[in-house]
Amino acid sequence: MARRDVFLISDSTAITVETLARSLLSQFPDVDFDTHVLRFVNNVQRVAEAVAAIERAAAAGSERVLVFTTILDAGLRARLARDDWLLIDFMSAFITPLEDELGTRCRPRIGQTHGIGEDRGSAYLRRMEAVNFALRNDDGASTAHYHEAELILIGVSRSGKTPTSLYLAMHYGTMVANYPLVEEDLEELSLPAVLRPYRERLFGLRIDPHRLHEIRRHRQPDSRYASLQQCRYETRQAEALYRHAGLPSLDVTSLSVEEIATRLLEAMAAGGTVTGP
Amino acid sequence: MARRDVFLISDSTAITVETLARSLLSQFPDVDFDTHVLRFVNNVQRVAEAVAAIERAAAAGSERVLVFTTILDAGLRARLARDDWLLIDFMSAFITPLEDELGTRCRPRIGQTHGIGEDRGSAYLRRMEAVNFALRNDDGASTAHYHEAELILIGVSRSGKTPTSLYLAMHYGTMVANYPLVEEDLEELSLPAVLRPYRERLFGLRIDPHRLHEIRRHRQPDSRYASLQQCRYETRQAEALYRHAGLPSLDVTSLSVEEIATRLLEAMAAGGTVTGP
Repeated sequence: MARRDVFLISDSTAITVETLARSLLSQFPDVDFDTHVLRFVNNVQRVAEAVAAIERAAAAGSERVLVFTTILDAGLRARLARDDWLLIDFMSAFITPLEDELGTRCRPRIGQTHGIGEDRGSAYLRRMEAVNFALRNDDGASTAHYHEAELILIGVSRSGKTPTSLYLAMHYGTMVANYPLVEEDLEELSLPAVLRPYRERLFGLRIDPHRLHEIRRHRQPDSRYASLQQCRYETRQAEALYRHAGLPSLDVTSLSVEEIATRLLEAMAAGGTVTGP
Repeated sequence: MARRDVFLISDSTAITVETLARSLLSQFPDVDFDTHVLRFVNNVQRVAEAVAAIERAAAAGSERVLVFTTILDAGLRARLARDDWLLIDFMSAFITPLEDELGTRCRPRIGQTHGIGEDRGSAYLRRMEAVNFALRNDDGASTAHYHEAELILIGVSRSGKTPTSLYLAMHYGTMVANYPLVEEDLEELSLPAVLRPYRERLFGLRIDPHRLHEIRRHRQPDSRYASLQQCRYETRQAEALYRHAGLPSLDVTSLSVEEIATRLLEAMAAGGTVTGP
């Protein structure tokens, strides 16, 4: 398989340049990319170190190196341009058309994208508050604050409720509680009493029993909890419960946390039911 | 302030297009952007709905609408091109130069960037395992698994240990435990016994007492815990403890969780001390 060294060079966290490069390079599955991330490259000295690292890789490898950058300072960025490697310069590619369209010059400010920003009183604090809310209202630990939740995820143990709650909180500031369906709930096939006042905020997660078996086995091998029989019983009962209660639900079997989270956002925006993939 | 409608159109989670647009638009602080995110726009019908939504915004506003897209399918993407709005087409801008450089055609595959990916056994599972580890080893809840931690964050209550641990776990698969410095630790000015075997994995968080006061007051108004006097005492003692123990530390006062997390990654990669901003 072809192999390429890739450098991702940022003047800040490198979150943007990593997202950008990952998105583009995932479209070339036949190439094996060896990725080096250089963060906080925000002065002449740091750029010189980056150039030296690229030069070393270029000298050692047989193929041209790829360099992605989101550095804002045009002067620093210019120091990364060499014929010896391909420079994918995200800022110059799009800033100029945007300046023309908006009729205003950009005012480069490092660290705005993933920093606290100027609204330290609002958006960032809301996200951190939502993370704390998700932690305090995780796994049915407390149900006293469900009235503050925008969304209450329900599902069997290990169906992805906790990481999804945390992701929605961290990235979108959504207030999410989650409630695990335990055996009593699954036997009853009716909505637990504590959830009934919040019916319109409930969302059920579904999962294939084989996948659940695999996840639980990884955690508690040879337990009844992880047995395929138990997983089959729980997932069947959970789906029946969602149906009986008329709850929207989503099959998360082959979805990542990012995909589950964004599908839930779509469902909340639409105010309706999400259908599985 | 000038106002612009912005549409972010993705065939998947929209995480990439949101990151890119946010990065670009944050450079134009004089414009007030009204952002609409359209996710899972992955067929002709969904694109037609998106175009209709853009047309409505264009008809209602006085300024040209901005449309950012990361849709992979060239046929679908072409349906978004109109003279009536500015289309910032992330894929076409960079895919062609990459194809030329790599000498291979791209093979568009939706949802690769923030999906589970083909390595469902490894990278994605490792991230989820790290999230579970961070939760089980949060706030000194359990210290029995510290030997499995790659990093152990220490700091006073509300200095950002928990969200930072979760962010590092969720995004980078780093195994992070965290330990809160309580009054006994702060009085002693020596490393708590439970931490001593792991000295080389410890990292101290520092925070300005006024900022800490502000955060704690938001949570427990009028408490001794939130008083400026108490915050001054705790932050001073914590810094003295780091100094005495010779621990690396980072001032997180004006940093976001993303910035703290990536600075810690840099410090771990360098194997050395991080200096505050």
